[in-house]
Amino acid sequence: MSEWTKRNLLDLQKFSKEEIEMVLETAKSFKEVSARDVKKVPALRGKTVVMLFFEPSTRTRASFELAAKRLSADTINIAASSSSLSKGESALDTARNIEAMNVDAIVVRHSSSGVPQILSDNLNVSVINAGDGCRAHPTQALLDMFTIQEKLGKIKGLKVAIIGDIRHSRVARSNIWGLIKLGAEVTVCGPSTLIPYGIEHLGAKVNYNLHEVIEQSDVLMPLRIQLERQQEKFLPSIREYAKQFGIDKEKLKNAKKNVVIMHPGPTNRGVELSAEVADGEYSVILNQVTNGVAVRMAILYLLLGAKGKSKVVK
Amino acid sequence: MSEWTKRNLLDLQKFSKEEIEMVLETAKSFKEVSARDVKKVPALRGKTVVMLFFEPSTRTRASFELAAKRLSADTINIAASSSSLSKGESALDTARNIEAMNVDAIVVRHSSSGVPQILSDNLNVSVINAGDGCRAHPTQALLDMFTIQEKLGKIKGLKVAIIGDIRHSRVARSNIWGLIKLGAEVTVCGPSTLIPYGIEHLGAKVNYNLHEVIEQSDVLMPLRIQLERQQEKFLPSIREYAKQFGIDKEKLKNAKKNVVIMHPGPTNRGVELSAEVADGEYSVILNQVTNGVAVRMAILYLLLGAKGKSKVVK
Amino acid sequence: MSEWTKRNLLDLQKFSKEEIEMVLETAKSFKEVSARDVKKVPALRGKTVVMLFFEPSTRTRASFELAAKRLSADTINIAASSSSLSKGESALDTARNIEAMNVDAIVVRHSSSGVPQILSDNLNVSVINAGDGCRAHPTQALLDMFTIQEKLGKIKGLKVAIIGDIRHSRVARSNIWGLIKLGAEVTVCGPSTLIPYGIEHLGAKVNYNLHEVIEQSDVLMPLRIQLERQQEKFLPSIREYAKQFGIDKEKLKNAKKNVVIMHPGPTNRGVELSAEVADGEYSVILNQVTNGVAVRMAILYLLLGAKGKSKVVK
Repeated sequence: MSEWTKRNLLDLQKFSKEEIEMVLETAKSFKEVSARDVKKVPALRGKTVVMLFFEPSTRTRASFELAAKRLSADTINIAASSSSLSKGESALDTARNIEAMNVDAIVVRHSSSGVPQILSDNLNVSVINAGDGCRAHPTQALLDMFTIQEKLGKIKGLKVAIIGDIRHSRVARSNIWGLIKLGAEVTVCGPSTLIPYGIEHLGAKVNYNLHEVIEQSDVLMPLRIQLERQQEKFLPSIREYAKQFGIDKEKLKNAKKNVVIMHPGPTNRGVELSAEVADGEYSVILNQVTNGVAVRMAILYLLLGAKGKSKVVK
Repeated sequence: MSEWTKRNLLDLQKFSKEEIEMVLETAKSFKEVSARDVKKVPALRGKTVVMLFFEPSTRTRASFELAAKRLSADTINIAASSSSLSKGESALDTARNIEAMNVDAIVVRHSSSGVPQILSDNLNVSVINAGDGCRAHPTQALLDMFTIQEKLGKIKGLKVAIIGDIRHSRVARSNIWGLIKLGAEVTVCGPSTLIPYGIEHLGAKVNYNLHEVIEQSDVLMPLRIQLERQQEKFLPSIREYAKQFGIDKEKLKNAKKNVVIMHPGPTNRGVELSAEVADGEYSVILNQVTNGVAVRMAILYLLLGAKGKSKVVK
Repeated sequence: MSEWTKRNLLDLQKFSKEEIEMVLETAKSFKEVSARDVKKVPALRGKTVVMLFFEPSTRTRASFELAAKRLSADTINIAASSSSLSKGESALDTARNIEAMNVDAIVVRHSSSGVPQILSDNLNVSVINAGDGCRAHPTQALLDMFTIQEKLGKIKGLKVAIIGDIRHSRVARSNIWGLIKLGAEVTVCGPSTLIPYGIEHLGAKVNYNLHEVIEQSDVLMPLRIQLERQQEKFLPSIREYAKQFGIDKEKLKNAKKNVVIMHPGPTNRGVELSAEVADGEYSVILNQVTNGVAVRMAILYLLLGAKGKSKVVK
């Protein structure tokens, strides 16, 4: 790939294999920046990055804010609760006003699927999806792929299992798109009520047998059970879920020798995975967080550094 | 005017014609900064600007914060809800403490008229009014004047109509003070319940006939109907208001050829003006937002750069 | 003392007399920075300081944020209400994730005593206690000592009285530890229900007679009655408290000539002290706020500049 042309990151469906690889490659050099004593490069000095969060978030917002600051960009935080949004303004209206302040990127999280797409269809500023509804969370998938590659040296040919609430998971969808594009084999596993009908059309396999899945996979990625999203009706009980689908040391006995355990966080210890496994030797959960900053630096750098500000490719 | 002496911006009543013109002139050069690739000048490096918002705000707070950052100042956000204000401290006490931290400017928004005045009477730090009660919102008026001048080449002699809820509008009051000082003719128009008794004493004309007003005006400035301020008692219904005072394409048929449509935002589309008009060829609503950053950079630059820190003139 | 070794500030019990004196000495030079026209030094450029506040705060958070910015560090604010904490994540989990983003210091405030200790036991990042439960608020004590030394030229041999709700006060505990270490004599005074049993073991004297205490003390430090912490059961009434323990001009008649009146803020005027006294000639309340920034700059500078990142001493 000779030149970067994308100006938005809406979901990984719209990124080619080469583009994803270029992000991961770029992130490598930025990871080194965060390990320095002076964790700062002047790459985006004088650029403005706005975090527009219609849903609360600690780690994703902080990760993007840090990424922008380590590139020397100026940052502005706008949270739904403290904004004119309470005055009934639409997300697009808000974003249009922010764009009019000559900002360079809007990092947006919204509970409704499609909001980042609507913004990018109507704005000239770079739009970066930090999670929309149950649809996509592309930087999470990118940092997951970065972490897998870092740990296992490759992605192509690996067997990755995503476990749990696939139905409501934007993380699952983005990972399926990205991992398959890079040549991994993705299997989803969970209670049948939480595996959406037709998920195979995205290229994922379905296997309801967790023991088989654990035996065969190089990477296990249990997902957060989001109690706050009223999923009780999909599950008999949390205790039952933990017993059947929670990953603990016992269930890992038949896992591959170098299995990698990931989690997008925040974890419910004792539900999706035991504390022992979360903090254990196979876990790369904190590596994911570290890599998140590097991957977001790469995305900001590539999107905002893109030559020729026309929206040739989205 | 040889030298800038003001240290506070409380309302435009206290600014002379020459001072307003100097702000608008200074804003012109700062507008160019925000259009650059590196949107940053070192003018206020090492200065501290505090956004002290007792009322929520997206665009005004973000606009001031961006303005300060593009001048290289450090910024601190203090929102009423997340502060010791919940512990019953008065606005002045809070501001006194902030001043004691050696900050250079406090940008304050408060639901009570007069709070910025009280702060400036008691503090030595620069106080900038970002909206107080129904009283004044001087940077909004300055950006409106900047936008009119940019669009129509002048302010003197223009006919400007402010339409809607004049009674509760700090934007209306600041615009009347400023526009008349610069030689415009200002007419207010709206339901009689929302035109405050005695508004003529500020120099504005009153005309209840919207059709006449549209025919005669160079600039139309419908104001936000602030449903959250319990104005229902002043209006038969929102639908009735929209029908009588909402500006749509039909009502604009008799407008002047180069009429300029402004709105302080956020707009209630379909109420104060139709979506078609808000996004149409006469609308300068987003230009207002862009110019807001430039005008606020000018204000911060002039107030904080003022030689001799004595409070000679307020 | 030749070299600084501490990497955390949990409470002043863990700091030696020499270490406290070194903080106060370092703060002196930083106080001068905040008085400059360009209030900024490059000491911590490229470092990241996170304000992790599980309790709301205006002045302490702003003071730390300003201190970090004036040292050129990057800052991130995380408030409990707008974070994944609402998703049930523990304080340690949150902090672990923040650490994984390669930050240099976490400034933490929490309503539970011991949280900063737990963080520092489990993390390699510098942990700075900005107040934990009723236990400790070490930077408040440091700024109090700095202010006393600045005003009276020394601490050794002085008689300092802490007045009011000693039971629930982290400020009292930190000041007792620090002041006694530096050779002051500390007396606590207040309603018997608010003087905790065994406070003498920390080295403080107890005297229930406010008039005697006022007569004998060089420094009077009334504490905030924290109505929001449901202390009503400890007091007959606020009015009664104000009458008996509130410091007013009348009660000060028998005070020493150069008595110093301090308060950690925010004050309840008319309760702990009269408005006249709070704003009067003996009051150094705003000096305390000014000195807070200098002391926090010194702490950040010393902790983050510490050579050799091993946790030799905590």
